[in-house]
Amino acid sequence: MNQNTDQPFVAINFIDCDDDYKQRFEELFSTRAKAIDTMPGFKNMEVLKPSDNSNGYLIVSHWNSEADFKQWTSSPEFIEGHKRGFADMAKAKQEGKKTPMHSTFKTYTVLTR
Amino acid sequence: MNQNTDQPFVAINFIDCDDDYKQRFEELFSTRAKAIDTMPGFKNMEVLKPSDNSNGYLIVSHWNSEADFKQWTSSPEFIEGHKRGFADMAKAKQEGKKTPMHSTFKTYTVLTR
Repeated sequence: MNQNTDQPFVAINFIDCDDDYKQRFEELFSTRAKAIDTMPGFKNMEVLKPSDNSNGYLIVSHWNSEADFKQWTSSPEFIEGHKRGFADMAKAKQEGKKTPMHSTFKTYTVLTR
Repeated sequence: MNQNTDQPFVAINFIDCDDDYKQRFEELFSTRAKAIDTMPGFKNMEVLKPSDNSNGYLIVSHWNSEADFKQWTSSPEFIEGHKRGFADMAKAKQEGKKTPMHSTFKTYTVLTR
């Protein structure tokens, strides 16, 4: 049922933002660098926002294969694509504050469509 | 950045299966009734399986709008599409066992692509 001969691969970053960082988080993604879009094997991504405005954003990206995904996470484009968010986290740490965003990463295969 | 004039809508069912129910769960979805595919406003669905074989399947469906999604959950097709899984749960309860699958439902808007 898969539409690719490769094993389609999905990465999801589960994000919790402090309330006073949500607007900035949404702004960063609404004006994202699109660095990821240039990567080999990248198919698409979506940033999902809970309908009830609760916490728990999801960043979902689809790849042709796990190898393509791994190449992205170790690429210069990955650093470039996360530059502004990484700077926000570094600034919080420098100021002795806790970072305003936390993420948990999981990867998936597509069982069926 | 959205590809629809409607507000794209995403429903995710977060599933945990008992170990001895995983094979049956995967079988049910690999041979699914495709009842959902006939619904107005349905765009696509994917069943995601954790790469590390840990628990936490995701059933992700995309809809043109929240109204389309709600129409599905209250339709005869919804009952039809879940018939075999519902029967498994009913059987476990009749036998005084705990149900072998648990799900938590969340809905999302697409913030950006």
